[in-house]
Amino acid sequence: MSKTEALITKSPGAHFEKAEMPLRQMTDNSVAIDIRYSGICHSDIHQVRDEWFEGIFPMVPGHEIVGEVTEVGASVTKFKVGDRVGVGTFVDSCGTCAPCLQGRENYCRTGNVQTYNGRHYDGEESYGGYAKQVVVNENFVLKVPENIDYAASAPLLCAGITVYSPLKHWQVGPGQKVGIMGLGGLGHMAVKFAVAMGAETYVLGHSLSKAQDAKDFGAKDYLMTTDIFETHKDFFDVILNTTSTDLDLDSLLGMIVVGGTFVTVGISPNKQDFHPFSVVTGMRSIAGANTGSIAGTQEMLDFCGEHNIVSTIELVDASDPKTIDDAYARVVDSDIRYRFVIDASTI
Amino acid sequence: MSKTEALITKSPGAHFEKAEMPLRQMTDNSVAIDIRYSGICHSDIHQVRDEWFEGIFPMVPGHEIVGEVTEVGASVTKFKVGDRVGVGTFVDSCGTCAPCLQGRENYCRTGNVQTYNGRHYDGEESYGGYAKQVVVNENFVLKVPENIDYAASAPLLCAGITVYSPLKHWQVGPGQKVGIMGLGGLGHMAVKFAVAMGAETYVLGHSLSKAQDAKDFGAKDYLMTTDIFETHKDFFDVILNTTSTDLDLDSLLGMIVVGGTFVTVGISPNKQDFHPFSVVTGMRSIAGANTGSIAGTQEMLDFCGEHNIVSTIELVDASDPKTIDDAYARVVDSDIRYRFVIDASTI
Repeated sequence: MSKTEALITKSPGAHFEKAEMPLRQMTDNSVAIDIRYSGICHSDIHQVRDEWFEGIFPMVPGHEIVGEVTEVGASVTKFKVGDRVGVGTFVDSCGTCAPCLQGRENYCRTGNVQTYNGRHYDGEESYGGYAKQVVVNENFVLKVPENIDYAASAPLLCAGITVYSPLKHWQVGPGQKVGIMGLGGLGHMAVKFAVAMGAETYVLGHSLSKAQDAKDFGAKDYLMTTDIFETHKDFFDVILNTTSTDLDLDSLLGMIVVGGTFVTVGISPNKQDFHPFSVVTGMRSIAGANTGSIAGTQEMLDFCGEHNIVSTIELVDASDPKTIDDAYARVVDSDIRYRFVIDASTI
Repeated sequence: MSKTEALITKSPGAHFEKAEMPLRQMTDNSVAIDIRYSGICHSDIHQVRDEWFEGIFPMVPGHEIVGEVTEVGASVTKFKVGDRVGVGTFVDSCGTCAPCLQGRENYCRTGNVQTYNGRHYDGEESYGGYAKQVVVNENFVLKVPENIDYAASAPLLCAGITVYSPLKHWQVGPGQKVGIMGLGGLGHMAVKFAVAMGAETYVLGHSLSKAQDAKDFGAKDYLMTTDIFETHKDFFDVILNTTSTDLDLDSLLGMIVVGGTFVTVGISPNKQDFHPFSVVTGMRSIAGANTGSIAGTQEMLDFCGEHNIVSTIELVDASDPKTIDDAYARVVDSDIRYRFVIDASTI
């Protein structure tokens, strides 16, 4: 079995260390990728700490992967050696459930194969992008435009598609006002997308320290969420929540126009409540969304190529694996503008 | 000032009695209508009892009105004497707010003029359909198809449009599975519409006593709501709630397909809660809707003419006003299949 150098954690909350980890065996449909950059997603932290469910250890996190194709299986038609490619949050899906047949593999009802901390359908553990190499079925590999910054394109594979998908689904565009709640890894991408889609875009937050950044990303204004419940009634066509805090849904819905949508991609661990009047009186919707399909992710990457959109990042040198622990601490403290990306050449 | 015979309540909860009540003055845009039939809506009961807000007394309830045009103002172009017409839940709107400009007068942000228990923009009280006559601006009068039953068409003006509007907005049609929660005045209309729209329609309820009626209205099956949470996961494209009970939203959302919608027109007095996972994991929406626009109501009436759809009713002889009190008691007990309609000739 082939192996790759990787950054691993051996148990929940353990420090990162370097180790050799197994690679998937190449098949006729496989694409072997030399990883160049790998984003650090907040969900990596939840998973290495077992905060969501009992993880599979040792774990190699990472589902924001960009790199170069080094080998393709005999049947591969979509990629050739040398292509710049990406891998996102899942690397296989059942292909037979209703969502898969609709091309919504991200909602696979059998359960798709998570890029890491999951199991392939043959039972083998899946290992992610904090590594030098990965082998993935070509149907779950994306083309990354050559004209956008290599390292800064990694976060598009999770943070990017997670917010692009709902903005697209709820048809954000010219003539609309969009509110983005939270300006972190996801939120800053949402602002860039909503602006590029032509919407009048606002950031809704709790701290003015990021106000200038919001404007630099193209937002019309940074608004203190709690200050605007009364002044911005029936104002936003769409509010996209990227935070995982508890929500004052009735007040938020009051700021949404008739027929508009509040959509969350952030997930509070708690139940959220609202009064039925808040939806009934304005034909409003409360919705949620989770990453995106393969076709949707490719569309998003092409959109980024066309509009020259990438994440705003801080590059991580992982020569000393402790830097990952440090980066995690800063993510938890919201002390990163706006996404850490690991330089895989340092692994 | 012209007057009309009407059924009035003089104070919250008082018995109905007959009295002469003022009619709106005719203007160039007015249509005078001899009321033939007037539906009894559950909201009438809430309002005469001051259960929602402090009402204007004496009150003439009724916002499911059908009748015949007897006079038109000089500028009226849409109607002529002898036309069969209807009046629904509102009789004026500001015409200048965003929803009004979009033709969504039912969501008028200035506040539209409720057909009864409201005030016209000139301050005059509005009186409803439990009367022999009403005068309404032509822009808020609907054409009622001549080929459908006269009395049974009255409930279309509120119960009908209230459920037609969300079914239409969320694009219910062939190839879809739709669940209608509750089989009362609204629910039975929703079943008839969803079936006519071509959807595989199910009634979700708590009592099998109406199972045969559900099938007679065209439903494929009557399902006991609590029995199907596990057996019908990812089953319905749309669930429309017509009840005002508290909702187990997480279980209900679990029965909705990826991208599907739970929409309520019933309003519980309490806040409802759900876990964000329930929307995020299936790109699902929780929505609400409230009656319909004038154009939407006309479309619904035309649809009823085309598909020969009316309400299933019990006619009320109001010669003795006490019959209204009795009918109200039966509505509160859910002892009506499915809508009371007052024969205005008996007022």
